[in-house]
Amino acid sequence: MTHPALDLNDTVHQRVRLGILAVLEEAKRAEFKYLREALDLSDGNLSRHVQGLEEAGLVRGEKGFEGRRPRTWISSTPAGRRAFEQELKALRALISRVDGS
Amino acid sequence: MTHPALDLNDTVHQRVRLGILAVLEEAKRAEFKYLREALDLSDGNLSRHVQGLEEAGLVRGEKGFEGRRPRTWISSTPAGRRAFEQELKALRALISRVDGS
Repeated sequence: MTHPALDLNDTVHQRVRLGILAVLEEAKRAEFKYLREALDLSDGNLSRHVQGLEEAGLVRGEKGFEGRRPRTWISSTPAGRRAFEQELKALRALISRVDGS
Repeated sequence: MTHPALDLNDTVHQRVRLGILAVLEEAKRAEFKYLREALDLSDGNLSRHVQGLEEAGLVRGEKGFEGRRPRTWISSTPAGRRAFEQELKALRALISRVDGS
């Protein structure tokens, strides 16, 4: 039997990325600025991690306008939701293994 | 209210480090080779992360012999156990927030 830590997925496990996917799980679609404030990040830090998740096919960005203001909305892709669910499953397994010991 | 992802601690959250601390929570003290096999790591990868945790004061290594064979045992320090508990608390909060949404 392998340790549940082996099932953690580096692409989504990183703290900021896990936060982004968790917010998107609740919000379905979030404005860039909302994510930045919810996770207390700088523009640069959030951009970098959104880009990483986008390159992995786990989130997508959509540019548009709200009135005259340019906005970027971020949402999870189906692959992103699956990866997040798998990560939660691995975290639950790790926690229950520790609780059982 | 801040998002629970903000309470994740980068020093212990990293996948391999979380795995090391989880094994040490069960085993109290583990031989280097045991950790390496339990977490399916290379010597170099495990050494690097043990060293990172050691520098942060979260684990300690103890060198000794088993018969004639040199061995290294790794154990969590009290600060390591506290940091791991805090991390689990943050992970539980993140999971229950997602479950509640």
